[in-house]
This record gives sequence, C-alpha cells and structure tokens, in this order.
Amino acid sequence: MDRMRNFRILVQYEGTRYLGWQRQDSTGNTIQGKLEAILAKMTGLDFVQVDGSGRTDAGVHALGQVANFKIDTGMSAQEVMDHINQYLPEDIGVISIQEVPERFHSRLNAKGKTYRYRIWNSKLPCVFERRYVYEMPDRLDLDAMRAAASYFVGKHDFKAFTSNKKSKKSTVRTIDAIRLEKVGNEIVITYSGDGFLYHMVRILTGTLIEVGLGQRTPESMAKLLENNASRDLSGVLVPAKGLCLVEVRY
Amino acid sequence: MDRMRNFRILVQYEGTRYLGWQRQDSTGNTIQGKLEAILAKMTGLDFVQVDGSGRTDAGVHALGQVANFKIDTGMSAQEVMDHINQYLPEDIGVISIQEVPERFHSRLNAKGKTYRYRIWNSKLPCVFERRYVYEMPDRLDLDAMRAAASYFVGKHDFKAFTSNKKSKKSTVRTIDAIRLEKVGNEIVITYSGDGFLYHMVRILTGTLIEVGLGQRTPESMAKLLENNASRDLSGVLVPAKGLCLVEVRY
Repeated sequence: MDRMRNFRILVQYEGTRYLGWQRQDSTGNTIQGKLEAILAKMTGLDFVQVDGSGRTDAGVHALGQVANFKIDTGMSAQEVMDHINQYLPEDIGVISIQEVPERFHSRLNAKGKTYRYRIWNSKLPCVFERRYVYEMPDRLDLDAMRAAASYFVGKHDFKAFTSNKKSKKSTVRTIDAIRLEKVGNEIVITYSGDGFLYHMVRILTGTLIEVGLGQRTPESMAKLLENNASRDLSGVLVPAKGLCLVEVRY
Repeated sequence: MDRMRNFRILVQYEGTRYLGWQRQDSTGNTIQGKLEAILAKMTGLDFVQVDGSGRTDAGVHALGQVANFKIDTGMSAQEVMDHINQYLPEDIGVISIQEVPERFHSRLNAKGKTYRYRIWNSKLPCVFERRYVYEMPDRLDLDAMRAAASYFVGKHDFKAFTSNKKSKKSTVRTIDAIRLEKVGNEIVITYSGDGFLYHMVRILTGTLIEVGLGQRTPESMAKLLENNASRDLSGVLVPAKGLCLVEVRY
C-alpha cells in the first residue's frame, strides 16, 4: 500500500435539499455521501471515508464545516479541491483544502464550534434570505432573551436541551458565549462552545424565543439546568433552516 | 361605480422561477400575473390591472419594484398588503403600501431607476448567493472597467446596448452614475439613470467585463456611443440572475 495523504477541507452547503451531513445507507441524499461518492470515483476505490467535525441535521446549513479524508494520490491539494468542486452540486462547495499530518481527525481534534441561528423577526415577507431564516413575526424582547442566555453560558448539564434520549453519554457541555444581535429585521443568535448535543442549539433557541415572547422568565432558565431537568421542561425545537454551522476550531 | 382608490406598492421578488414581470397570456408564470390574479379574486372582478414601473426580464430580481393598482375596497392599505402577501408565493413579497392620488402611475411618473449587477469574481464556489450572482472566475481589471464605465455616464444614444431592433422609439438615455465596487469576492456594479432600454444593463455589464478581461480598451467605449454603432459592436449579454432592480425614483 502506498503512502496515504490526509486532506482537510472547509465545506459550505445550503442544507435545504439534504437529509443532513451524515451518510445514509442506500438512497439518502447527504453531504458526506456526495463527497464520498466523488472521492471514490476519483481514486477508483469502492469507498473513501470522509470524516466531518460532526453531523448537521437535515436542512441545516454550513458556512464552515470541516472534514478530512485519506487518499493515495499524486494530485496536488488544489487539484483535489478543483476536482471535487467540479462534481459537487451547486449547493455544496469546498472553499479551501490543506494537506495535514496523518493524525489529524476533524471530529476528534475539534476543540470548539460556533453556530448561528437567524430569526426573521418581522411581519414583512423575507424574500431573498427565506431559506436561511426562521420567520417569527411576533415582537421579541431582546433584553429578556439576553438575560436568559446568560444562564446557559459556562459548563452545564444540557440534558433538557437534547432530543437524544437513548444516549448514555455525558450531556455536560461548556458554552463560551452566546451573542444576540438585532441586524435589520433579524435577530441573530451566535453560540460558541466546546460542542453541542443533538438538537441543542435549536432547543436553546426555541427556549430563548419563548422568553422573548414573555412565556418564560429569564430566571426560570436556572431550573432547566438542574439535575432533575428534562426535555419536556425546555422550549420548542425551532426549524432547521435558521441554523448554520459557522466555524469549527482546532 | 364607486370611488376607485389607487394603491402604490413596493415589491420584492427572486426572479429565478419567473418569466419576468410582465403578464403573459395563458400559462405564463409572471410577477404581474400573480399580483393581478390575487387582486381579481380579492375584489371579485374578472380583472384588476397592476402597472409596474417597467418590465424586468425572466430571471431578473427586484429589491424595490414599484407598482400601482386601482380598486374599490373598504379595506385599509395595510389590510390590502397583508391579503396580497398571504396569497403570494414565498419568492414574491410586498414590503410596503400607500394610498396615493388617482393620477399616480408607477411607470409614467418614474423619474429614475437604479439597477445592480453582481459578479462573483472567484474560482471558489458561491454556495449561498448563487442565485443572485454571475460567476466569472477570471481576473477582472477593476480600474480599466471603471475607466470604461465613465464613458457611459451622461446623455447618450445607447442603441448599441439593446436587443430590441424593431422599436422606433428613442434609444437616448441619461446615466447619472455607474459605481463599481469590490465587495469580498464580488464585483458589484450599480447603475443609476433616467431609464434603461431592453437588455441595456446586461449588455453594458458584458461590455465592461470584456474590458476587465483586457479584450477591449476603456477608450474603445467611445465608438459604441457613436451614430453608426450597433448591437454587434457591443459586448455579450450577461445572465439575468446577476441583475436586480434596486430602486425606482419618483
């Protein structure tokens, strides 16, 4: 066997048409599946595994997903990227590539991630960005949402903020910062942390929206982080289309 | 007949799915057609005419198309707008409405328009904005394009910059300003003038791109505005999807 080279790529996608990042058996239309199919064809192998920094759900977008794969090729990194882009559909794109040491693994080495959730907070139609925002026309109290978000910052057990009931893995995560900004008609919430549980950002956002609507108080967030908290106490799961994986840190 | 009230609306649309602004007989999918169908149903009439400030071609977008229509209704302007938006598809939206004097006509009273053409000037894929930009990866000389654009500013006969051969109407127009900006990977060209001929902005842009590629000199623009100039001397017609009607002035 020849020397295997490890390539790290930065991937953007509009998630609208996809079942998510993760490969599925048979016909599942996924981003990982698309990349793996192109690389298998390029190398002439039956299968080339592409590891992502983590899954993104069906309909979720990515501005900066990171992935890596090991192939035996004489092509330059730039040539590999150009080849992949040539065969990718127009709603997925590789925007940078580097050859990295063999030990680099996009998921295992990830130290932190940033996600952004965009809320179109207006009764007006959102024509051009409609695929990337969640339309929530009712007035939201941004100050109350900010006060509520401050409870989530730090190291907490977020078991009330995940849809994954079966997992026995730790549900403790550290959120470094949550920023809420009003940008035109939008409220943009940016979450940075060491990692996020299944559906965590969307349930956190749904809970913050309920605070913004006056249905919960900021102070009531404390209870959702306690030992006896559970999914039925936290807020609604907001739609995937408002969510975007912005950055993965190493 | 009751008093007819005149409503002026500001309309946004993503042109991708449409045959353009202008109503067509039978099955044509047009923005004017959609608006007229909703208003006819709302008023119970066979037909309600919606006049736009001008046509936009198939695939062209609008951030600020202006239109007006006369109806006899007891609804408030806000109620009329909400009703229209409720029935419009998500790629068309009315973002403001006002009741105006009966004599106001969106086309006849228009004093000027601003169009924007967006060029994605990079070899990298453009994932999120791909429906709104023209991908032109080759390096463009922005200074040369700016020098060329300066020839077009002022009152000129633009007959070499329209696809409409049959018309006997004047092809003299005044361009007030052309601004070329580099914004990230994009070159954005903004045209303001008293009016634009059929395909004029797209042919001007195609010609400026040929200057940017070094295929024409800025100085050669002068010839294209002379008496004996014709369409076969000017540049290529660039794709509709990069074009957007930004504003109509009254």
